[in-house]
Amino acid sequence: MDRIYLDNNATTITDPMVKQAMEPYFCEKYGNPNSLHSFGTEVHPDLRVAMNRLYKGLGAAEDDDILITGCATESNNTVLKGVYFDLIKNGEKNHIITTSVEHPCVANTCRFLENQGAQVTFLPVNKDARVEAEDVRHAITEKTALVSVMWANNETGIIFSIKEIARVCREKGVLFHTDAVQAIGKVKVDVQDAGVDFLSLSAHKFHGPKGIGALFIRRGLKLPPLLHGGEQMSGKRAGTLNTAGIVGMGLALELAVDNLNYEATEVRRLRDKLEDGLLKLKDVMVIGRRELRVPNTVFISVRGVEGEALLWDLNKNGIAASTGSACASESLEASPVIAAIGAGSELSHTGIRLSLSRFTTEGEIDRAVKAFTEAVGRLRAVSSSY
Amino acid sequence: MDRIYLDNNATTITDPMVKQAMEPYFCEKYGNPNSLHSFGTEVHPDLRVAMNRLYKGLGAAEDDDILITGCATESNNTVLKGVYFDLIKNGEKNHIITTSVEHPCVANTCRFLENQGAQVTFLPVNKDARVEAEDVRHAITEKTALVSVMWANNETGIIFSIKEIARVCREKGVLFHTDAVQAIGKVKVDVQDAGVDFLSLSAHKFHGPKGIGALFIRRGLKLPPLLHGGEQMSGKRAGTLNTAGIVGMGLALELAVDNLNYEATEVRRLRDKLEDGLLKLKDVMVIGRRELRVPNTVFISVRGVEGEALLWDLNKNGIAASTGSACASESLEASPVIAAIGAGSELSHTGIRLSLSRFTTEGEIDRAVKAFTEAVGRLRAVSSSY
Repeated sequence: MDRIYLDNNATTITDPMVKQAMEPYFCEKYGNPNSLHSFGTEVHPDLRVAMNRLYKGLGAAEDDDILITGCATESNNTVLKGVYFDLIKNGEKNHIITTSVEHPCVANTCRFLENQGAQVTFLPVNKDARVEAEDVRHAITEKTALVSVMWANNETGIIFSIKEIARVCREKGVLFHTDAVQAIGKVKVDVQDAGVDFLSLSAHKFHGPKGIGALFIRRGLKLPPLLHGGEQMSGKRAGTLNTAGIVGMGLALELAVDNLNYEATEVRRLRDKLEDGLLKLKDVMVIGRRELRVPNTVFISVRGVEGEALLWDLNKNGIAASTGSACASESLEASPVIAAIGAGSELSHTGIRLSLSRFTTEGEIDRAVKAFTEAVGRLRAVSSSY
Repeated sequence: MDRIYLDNNATTITDPMVKQAMEPYFCEKYGNPNSLHSFGTEVHPDLRVAMNRLYKGLGAAEDDDILITGCATESNNTVLKGVYFDLIKNGEKNHIITTSVEHPCVANTCRFLENQGAQVTFLPVNKDARVEAEDVRHAITEKTALVSVMWANNETGIIFSIKEIARVCREKGVLFHTDAVQAIGKVKVDVQDAGVDFLSLSAHKFHGPKGIGALFIRRGLKLPPLLHGGEQMSGKRAGTLNTAGIVGMGLALELAVDNLNYEATEVRRLRDKLEDGLLKLKDVMVIGRRELRVPNTVFISVRGVEGEALLWDLNKNGIAASTGSACASESLEASPVIAAIGAGSELSHTGIRLSLSRFTTEGEIDRAVKAFTEAVGRLRAVSSSY
């Protein structure tokens, strides 16, 4: 029986159209875009199309920068370390504000910068698993260089009030960055409407290839590069341009935006059907109000069942789920997001995340509800805590 | 008529076998390798094969680290900035030694670190366009944290005495890094035989895909990550693993090593044939003794002819060459390598690089000699300086 992939917040299938669009750039149009001869220049129109798709997909203005990076981890490191070098180490600020539920690539970079002398405030989330704009306002001091708040949480799917937080930051004259990895393709992301200064994204989270991401930088803002080197991207991010990856990411973003309505209706309907099916189980709890979440994610805690054990049982039955961030899945530690919303230690080990995509079918959801229900029955039958 | 690609030091065609090997990882085996379910774990054997190919191809020991990066620019930045944070900013050293002919991703990172308080010595090259081990020895002080010398130069193809330089560094207790981007696949690169501490490489320079590179780190050595984040690579380089890229790079390195004998004989024969053909022109000069160069590169100066003009003429006739590093090709500045070997300013604008690969054919070389000769004739006829 076919396996069912419900771990789209970890990574996604590359859209076959995206894969096809990337094909020519390996063995045919393989020139280095920075070369002056025809092998180099012949890819320029294709790169322009891809970059235009990125600008349009994010709602960026012509004079904004969109840097191509290797992944959102690189984008996030670029912002945090760039601000560190520019405003903290060599400037008069010393303070960064972020949340206690950021992805490890923001959280661990902040911890590194703490060791380098930066002050970092990790704002806790409230009962809605969110940080609100007023929380940010109260944390800002005259020493604050940067606020970094994710657009949507990878584990819970909770959407943060990015536009309001950006407004507070602008009022206070503080730079604002958002890690939008889990928002792109799920909800509308418009950098001008939201008023963000920096925004990170990763292609493989919206049916693009792995190994390519981007960083939006509002016009007029300068950041020291994380990757110094050649003149690619006006010296703002060095490294030979990954033509296939850029073309793939550009098309993937266009397709993701084109499918936003499908995501908001059909993916949401399937997610709700899944969630409603799971909520028929006794003693389960879904984290976060449905209307505050991206349409594809449900994070559910099943009393008496270790998330890890449930994941294994589901996997044996062909269903791919997650206990949280794949980037931390080897650690088997309690979910920091669940810990952050103040749930008890039992709860923090019983969460499991199911995340859909536009490739998820109704038949898969029906099978997933059945398999999940049966797995919980099996595991509760042998549970020492239920 | 088919175009002729003689700019393999800028980038290379992806070997069709490599492209084919990457195919399954977009739409079939697309799981995140860090996920615990079958979509994640099913790629582990393939990643192990790829990593084994990298270890074998570089002659690395099992307990050495090979980090996967997005490109050699990232690898080089990782070493230089890692050493800066570890030994210079938070340690008792302050000095980095490199050469005046490094790729911009080493040179510009060093300049950035100078602005952060590091002392950097840029060693000039001698009449052989090389820096010798004794030059390095004399430059080392008790404050030296790192020596970084490229294995082979991107513009001239000149090979540096890496083993001897590494020996001097080891004697002096100084870390040694080499940017081996232009050596891999052209000459034997064995990290244990050479005794280097850190080594950078980029897949797209040896018929692998763009957007993926690696950094060898000798066992026992620690470097603060350039990309903080998730637990990938034991926390030494965060970011979702680019499965397709890793598989492609692994195979590309294996093929490159398998073809080293072909490179040393047939590619060298074709390069020599090209070079001999061009040397029949009057008033031309090839930079660097042939026996000191990688087998695929010739960098030739044609008196009275701007390199730029020659490149355009060749391009019109279907031949892709370069005036030097593609990463600086938009600047139209004089070649820093030519400037560094002390040649006059006229010479520094008249250099052109032709670089072959195992895909270059004898027919292409014959056509290239003819086209080059005709182009020089045309351009000298209208030259104001010849």
